Amino acid sequence: MEIWASIAEILAQVKKMKPLVHHLTNYVTANDCANVVLAVGGSPVMAHEPKEVEEMVSQADSLVLNIGTLDEDKLGAMLLAGKRANERGIPVVLDPVGVGATRFRSQAAEQLLGEVRPAVIRGNQAEIKKIAGLDGRLRGVDSWEREQTSPRVVQALARRLGCVVAMTGKRDVISDGRRLCVLENGHPMLSRITGSGCMSTSLVAACCGVTGDYFLAAVTGLSLMGLAGERAAQKLKAGEGPGSFKVNLLDSIYCLASEEFWPELKLVVWEGGEPPESLG
Amino acid sequence: MEIWASIAEILAQVKKMKPLVHHLTNYVTANDCANVVLAVGGSPVMAHEPKEVEEMVSQADSLVLNIGTLDEDKLGAMLLAGKRANERGIPVVLDPVGVGATRFRSQAAEQLLGEVRPAVIRGNQAEIKKIAGLDGRLRGVDSWEREQTSPRVVQALARRLGCVVAMTGKRDVISDGRRLCVLENGHPMLSRITGSGCMSTSLVAACCGVTGDYFLAAVTGLSLMGLAGERAAQKLKAGEGPGSFKVNLLDSIYCLASEEFWPELKLVVWEGGEPPESLG
Amino acid sequence: MEIWASIAEILAQVKKMKPLVHHLTNYVTANDCANVVLAVGGSPVMAHEPKEVEEMVSQADSLVLNIGTLDEDKLGAMLLAGKRANERGIPVVLDPVGVGATRFRSQAAEQLLGEVRPAVIRGNQAEIKKIAGLDGRLRGVDSWEREQTSPRVVQALARRLGCVVAMTGKRDVISDGRRLCVLENGHPMLSRITGSGCMSTSLVAACCGVTGDYFLAAVTGLSLMGLAGERAAQKLKAGEGPGSFKVNLLDSIYCLASEEFWPELKLVVWEGGEPPESLG
Repeated sequence: MEIWASIAEILAQVKKMKPLVHHLTNYVTANDCANVVLAVGGSPVMAHEPKEVEEMVSQADSLVLNIGTLDEDKLGAMLLAGKRANERGIPVVLDPVGVGATRFRSQAAEQLLGEVRPAVIRGNQAEIKKIAGLDGRLRGVDSWEREQTSPRVVQALARRLGCVVAMTGKRDVISDGRRLCVLENGHPMLSRITGSGCMSTSLVAACCGVTGDYFLAAVTGLSLMGLAGERAAQKLKAGEGPGSFKVNLLDSIYCLASEEFWPELKLVVWEGGEPPESLG
Repeated sequence: MEIWASIAEILAQVKKMKPLVHHLTNYVTANDCANVVLAVGGSPVMAHEPKEVEEMVSQADSLVLNIGTLDEDKLGAMLLAGKRANERGIPVVLDPVGVGATRFRSQAAEQLLGEVRPAVIRGNQAEIKKIAGLDGRLRGVDSWEREQTSPRVVQALARRLGCVVAMTGKRDVISDGRRLCVLENGHPMLSRITGSGCMSTSLVAACCGVTGDYFLAAVTGLSLMGLAGERAAQKLKAGEGPGSFKVNLLDSIYCLASEEFWPELKLVVWEGGEPPESLG
Repeated sequence: MEIWASIAEILAQVKKMKPLVHHLTNYVTANDCANVVLAVGGSPVMAHEPKEVEEMVSQADSLVLNIGTLDEDKLGAMLLAGKRANERGIPVVLDPVGVGATRFRSQAAEQLLGEVRPAVIRGNQAEIKKIAGLDGRLRGVDSWEREQTSPRVVQALARRLGCVVAMTGKRDVISDGRRLCVLENGHPMLSRITGSGCMSTSLVAACCGVTGDYFLAAVTGLSLMGLAGERAAQKLKAGEGPGSFKVNLLDSIYCLASEEFWPELKLVVWEGGEPPESLG
């Protein structure tokens, strides 16, 4: 499977190059985000003071802009860091947490997309639909979409914005406008802990720090998270739940990042041609 | 035991309705609070930007105001969110973390209670005594009360404020002024991890999101936490400590929320009559 | 081993006196810092509102100033809290996270050192070299120093600043200018989770809260962290990684704090004489 060779190469590069991933992120899951970046071999740094974000991001290999627990001050700092990253060719990964839940978040996402060119946008179904101008069903920061969003929505958005769009859910759909990948891995327990989405974003950012192919970087990060979720759930014993799942998840990310091959990987890639309208 | 039927019904409703619990809370335990809400089936959201809190809380089923790591900006946002919640009939659960430790926290709690009508106040013994105008022994955010506070203090405060007061400690005491419940479950290890109090508050808020009987909601949330603490401690093996305890705690909350019956539940409810002056 | 008697005495005092450790710290690892302080028997409190920090620190037994995720507002609060701590003789433990990574952090550390007299500075090799005016190799907040920094750098800095300097890394080096201790405990997994450094700082601060000998307090805190790291790694089974390691770490800190003797402790103390130029 040639995609596997690309994934393996990216993960090997992360371990070798220890990409510095600068985060402007929320305080709820910052610890989890730092831990997954370390688990794959990267180096996380969180910094939001406007006076230092441009200098910090200039040293970084990628930048995460995660709008969970956003406020005016952090938004200003995100714009500074994002623009500087663009100038320097440092990839920006945007996580539009809860976009559509409030006007403030929607306007913030709009402003970020107007002034900063992301390499990847990673969101749940409702968030990606909202960015695409569709009516996403969101409550708070959780998607309440009942049906799998068409992969064509993802592809069209990627084409329009000229970046990679990575939509996570029961199935993950990733596109750079030309290529499109559907990932079948994952587990419902991922939605029973906080931070699954944020951690996915940080993994994608770690991968973006070592390759110029952000589509493959997104596929790698989300494959790793999906598979780790499956492994983490498989290890659960009777009487265990989300506490053990979260521990297993971090363990599994760490172990998977060093394994020779992932036999459980279930993904399909369309290249050039049209993807199906529906994933059934 | 008829109280058990009420508890079971509330927990079933949480799973069915997935209440959205908006938090304005501290950055120390926000991750833990989000995880317990998810563990029982609710949906947590953290948002503090003044421009969005009113819109966010309007979609929520309950609101947590937790004053740990409070600052002036967050206090302003809490007042906005709390007033809007009151207007919309959305229950507010106040956690007066460290009230009495500094003038700032005491004044903040006073202002919150002056401008926002809580459905439930959840605090440790020293915090509840302080709110009641008594001299609570507090150091930082931990209660140093040596003796069990009289349940009558809790009942009188509930009557005066017209809300449910839920005081946690060796024994938990909950009253809405008329009814009073004493809970005997819990474990000393709960005081050896950070966030036990905050997590209790968030569980109570999740329950308040699905019933108009906030007394039963508080009894449900604190019963769940107390029993989960016992189970988590029972599962500890030699050489384990607070790290494993915290994992077990989240596992136990998750499992208990789906169990048919809790045989270990130890609580007494007084209805109408006077509760004893002392719990011995 | 007489140093062991001092360590044991300090840990016994922590359990007895439950020192209140006031933190002004980052939001990434605040939960971990609170948990380690509780694990050894102390009482953590986090508070950063300028209106309350002086009052809060006045009740505390020690103060942590950790500049991870620092901003202008928090820096102002740190200066207030630090000066008040100095006036009251309450020991201040400074963690100059990422100093040298940006001008803002370097200037902040300089200002803090200019206006507040720390009892202990705890940092990684690159951070300590930077404070010493040498060229530390840092990326983000991680040290990229390849060679073990000479213990004489640590000793000279301790002499110049008149405080204890505690440098962590493959080997930990601690000096008060006169005495110097080299600690051989620890494990590489400590660098695969976020917060190892911050947690070490908080443990040192808990120990500073019960003794006037801050050199011994730093030796105690770092010995405990190093040994706990070893134990945590030893307990890892196949398929486990940083998730389990972190759980084991907190468990091990808790258990070690109550053990009669630590046979694995590997440290050397120089008193009065010159330490070796290099640790090989």
